[in-house]
Amino acid sequence: MKATFIYGAGDVRVETVPDPVIQHPTDAIVRTVRACVCGSDLHRYHSMPARDTGRSMGHELIGVVEETGAAVTSVKPGDFVVVPFSWQDNTCVFCREGVQTSCLHGGFYGTREAAGLQAERARIPQADGSLVVVPGIDPDTADEGLLASLLALSDVYLTGYHAAHMGRVAPGATVTVIGDGAVGLSAVLASRRLGAERIILMGRHRARTDLGAEWGATDVVAERGAEGIAKVMDLTNGEGSHIVLEAVGHMPAYEQASGIVRPGGIISRVGAPQYEEAPIGFGSLFGKNVRLAGGPAPVRAYLDAAIPQVLGGEIAPGRVFDRAIPLADAAAGYAAMDSREALKVMLTP
Amino acid sequence: MKATFIYGAGDVRVETVPDPVIQHPTDAIVRTVRACVCGSDLHRYHSMPARDTGRSMGHELIGVVEETGAAVTSVKPGDFVVVPFSWQDNTCVFCREGVQTSCLHGGFYGTREAAGLQAERARIPQADGSLVVVPGIDPDTADEGLLASLLALSDVYLTGYHAAHMGRVAPGATVTVIGDGAVGLSAVLASRRLGAERIILMGRHRARTDLGAEWGATDVVAERGAEGIAKVMDLTNGEGSHIVLEAVGHMPAYEQASGIVRPGGIISRVGAPQYEEAPIGFGSLFGKNVRLAGGPAPVRAYLDAAIPQVLGGEIAPGRVFDRAIPLADAAAGYAAMDSREALKVMLTP
Repeated sequence: MKATFIYGAGDVRVETVPDPVIQHPTDAIVRTVRACVCGSDLHRYHSMPARDTGRSMGHELIGVVEETGAAVTSVKPGDFVVVPFSWQDNTCVFCREGVQTSCLHGGFYGTREAAGLQAERARIPQADGSLVVVPGIDPDTADEGLLASLLALSDVYLTGYHAAHMGRVAPGATVTVIGDGAVGLSAVLASRRLGAERIILMGRHRARTDLGAEWGATDVVAERGAEGIAKVMDLTNGEGSHIVLEAVGHMPAYEQASGIVRPGGIISRVGAPQYEEAPIGFGSLFGKNVRLAGGPAPVRAYLDAAIPQVLGGEIAPGRVFDRAIPLADAAAGYAAMDSREALKVMLTP
Repeated sequence: MKATFIYGAGDVRVETVPDPVIQHPTDAIVRTVRACVCGSDLHRYHSMPARDTGRSMGHELIGVVEETGAAVTSVKPGDFVVVPFSWQDNTCVFCREGVQTSCLHGGFYGTREAAGLQAERARIPQADGSLVVVPGIDPDTADEGLLASLLALSDVYLTGYHAAHMGRVAPGATVTVIGDGAVGLSAVLASRRLGAERIILMGRHRARTDLGAEWGATDVVAERGAEGIAKVMDLTNGEGSHIVLEAVGHMPAYEQASGIVRPGGIISRVGAPQYEEAPIGFGSLFGKNVRLAGGPAPVRAYLDAAIPQVLGGEIAPGRVFDRAIPLADAAAGYAAMDSREALKVMLTP
């Protein structure tokens, strides 16, 4: 089958590899219907040192179950499923507390434990805890927009939702979203659905901020750094934002968040931090009683509620996909996202 | 009158200065009944560079109103009051949101704006928003224990309470308190009252941890660093603590908190951080979806509820005071706390 690997910055290759096989009784094999490229994949596309063996890529997928291990009971061959970007047993103590990305028996794709999902087929560990069936949909005849929105539940929309949920977005709140990538726009949509009164979107790509406005952003701030902070403070009567959703992951975005958050407010991060240390002392978070939240989204925790919202047409988070290309051309998809020509690229096997 | 100043590390002096006078119509003058030394005062006592002019010290006080400015309406001469460690108008937008320590018209004692409270008299700015009357108590004849507990509401107990409140301590939670100083012990008491099922107190001073146990600590861990982390992980079935209340402020305490907090858990800090940058990236907070909370306690927000708890005998937070000395001997009080001979020292004018 075809599968995607990265060999270093800018060097993505689609190669032919053996089909995956069941390794554990809890595994399932899923045939890809749609996969895609994530903004977080671009961190490696920017800076990974060149190496001889490729690193397997991808962690977002919808597909059809082809085979299940002996212990799998909740899905069967033929089921159309959404695959969350982490796998989990969904029964351990941390899963029960809603932190499935920290599952005691869970993990991530594109690692030693499981190959990446930008491929024609995938081995899904802990299938019972990970796969969620989409009832009543035949992926071969389904509407493209519906498929896109289901694929968005694998990571991007529910990561935006996680930001808003952990930021405790509620009716009346002023929310600022930093980043007009697919996760930032998803955070706008989720904030609107959670009742935010005002949503300030910080981003400079017109086509993207236009979708943000359609999804509920009341203000768009194109400026960055000190200028961007001043603009948001102006918009909030000098008080700052109750909630800041940081969907970028770089230090300037964190500093921006810290600069615009209101005393007693929350910064909720879902952009994978490209730093380890950051200011949290008296002069930044502590003095203002600012709270910090966020992390890798426990997509599985939100999936049961989100699938009916997509099927019922309440939300169409798949609109973040503005390009669909064959899996074989994945390298072109990375390049298009990296150059900002495409917001989010769907891969079709 | 007598007032306390620090001239450098280890150099505390009580000097005679002019009595304070009303400067603004919103001021009140309060005669000290009891004041005290705070753990946070010790940071300066350790490391302040020597200088020629003393820095005015103290921010905890109970006393009797002697005089009020023309605009003050809620207190009058003769009223017995608790003075929160910050002053605030208690009407601005941030006060209304419960973050009185960030009041638009507020501030702190021992600054250019207002002298410290380790003195015989004090000028209290924004008296209407800051002073809370203790009804039905004559401080000249009141029980010493009652006075101590009211004084504890000025900062220490409600700072411990703030840690627990912002840590979202609730029934069933496992809470670890780092630090057996007066704030840490207060956090134990507050956690117990908020229903914590298990309270692990990290501290090595037996007399203090004994009070902690009496106030609700179910386990005491004397070890620090990696050994302390391992001990807490053992005690929590390898899972870590839902909530960690950090009542120290030094980096090793933060690292300890980060090491023992459970995925999805909360670190709530009330020890004034003696650092600005700290690890919050994927390897520390983000990867585990750990939340960070805390800051200077908005004592005023909690005072109306706490005073009746003290008057009714529900709580006796004044037990953290294990020494009472004349204000004139304040220097000896600092020394006793610094050497850990005393847990918290009360000053009597």
